[in-house]
Amino acid sequence: MNKETYCLLENFMLSCMDDAAHDKEHIYRVLYNALEIAKTEDKADLDILTAACLLHDIGRKEQFENPALCHAIIGSEKAYQFLLANGFERSYAEQVKQCIKTHRYRKNNRPQSLEAKILFDADKLDVTRAIGIARTLLYKGIVSEPLYSVLPNGVVSTGENDTTPSFFQEYKYKLENIYTNFYTEKAAAIAKERQRISIKFYNSLYQEVSSSYQNGINEVNNLFGS
Amino acid sequence: MNKETYCLLENFMLSCMDDAAHDKEHIYRVLYNALEIAKTEDKADLDILTAACLLHDIGRKEQFENPALCHAIIGSEKAYQFLLANGFERSYAEQVKQCIKTHRYRKNNRPQSLEAKILFDADKLDVTRAIGIARTLLYKGIVSEPLYSVLPNGVVSTGENDTTPSFFQEYKYKLENIYTNFYTEKAAAIAKERQRISIKFYNSLYQEVSSSYQNGINEVNNLFGS
Repeated sequence: MNKETYCLLENFMLSCMDDAAHDKEHIYRVLYNALEIAKTEDKADLDILTAACLLHDIGRKEQFENPALCHAIIGSEKAYQFLLANGFERSYAEQVKQCIKTHRYRKNNRPQSLEAKILFDADKLDVTRAIGIARTLLYKGIVSEPLYSVLPNGVVSTGENDTTPSFFQEYKYKLENIYTNFYTEKAAAIAKERQRISIKFYNSLYQEVSSSYQNGINEVNNLFGS
Repeated sequence: MNKETYCLLENFMLSCMDDAAHDKEHIYRVLYNALEIAKTEDKADLDILTAACLLHDIGRKEQFENPALCHAIIGSEKAYQFLLANGFERSYAEQVKQCIKTHRYRKNNRPQSLEAKILFDADKLDVTRAIGIARTLLYKGIVSEPLYSVLPNGVVSTGENDTTPSFFQEYKYKLENIYTNFYTEKAAAIAKERQRISIKFYNSLYQEVSSSYQNGINEVNNLFGS
């Protein structure tokens, strides 16, 4: 791919991006992650991988407006049509499409090609470490969800088994478990190296709020009656 | 204050609350912080302090809709009128009003009474530690601001001296420096005990993204031309 092609794809991506947790900087991080992973994998096609990374979230807006839609499916079709309309070969467009279609974590729709696996891993890396925590919190703000749920007895829930959406629920349901779900060794190693900051952050936040509620509710009851 | 009065104030607060970073859970954390601080201070009037904590952010909605307004000024007047309309003594309502008016960090409007200082500290504690990081990120999502700015040379800015709003800018401008701004020893001690998690989180996030951009941009230029 030459610089002109890169810019064509980049500009199409920029015209499609929207919310702050999946903004263009997320796309660049995923691309940079992918190129780093690709260095350790033989035979990755960097033209397919680069196009797939740049275009992997171009269906986000449609999903945000209608949560019944899947941004991976929508985005893969948009990318395919864009590539064909811009004179790329059908087999190239098809391979990029397949990468985008399988980048979301779904049991019945797993990545098959090496490039699809690298995109999957590069995207998942952005849900690990401090960046994973930061993006999840940003997203909770965008969709007006709280940090945690308070149980009827006044105790702050850890998030485990919560049915109400919150940052703690997302941490327990998704962020905590993502470190073992990589296809490539390199991605697993990058995530693992900074997994501790994610755990420490959650633990500190839980400790700060849960002890505050526990002491505070007792104090309010002592002072003003329960 | 009896339980009935507490519930009257609590229900008025609940009817005024709105966004996820200044939601009712923030109010409870501030109240619980304040009651913990008050234990170490002689002669704090807990009735004034409790009312001031419960009502300190009831002007947030007005400020959110019109950023030219100050929620501390608006909220103090709303609280004063509510207390008078509900039969509280004028001097009590006046003292609660003064606490709320000075809870925001403004050089020419500093807290004077012990209760005002405790409210100020209790509110600032919620900008320290992991909870301060979490709330700031949530708020950046609500107002659609990004995690960081990328300088024209492709380097991720640390946030220092940034003029564009972002999480890193807010961290450098506000969160990093708040640990020395307390009136009470107890609040300073609570903040200090977990200051490290805030520093570690920022450092890890900066490291993760800045190294990714640095390597990634070089790689893109090598592959596709600069």
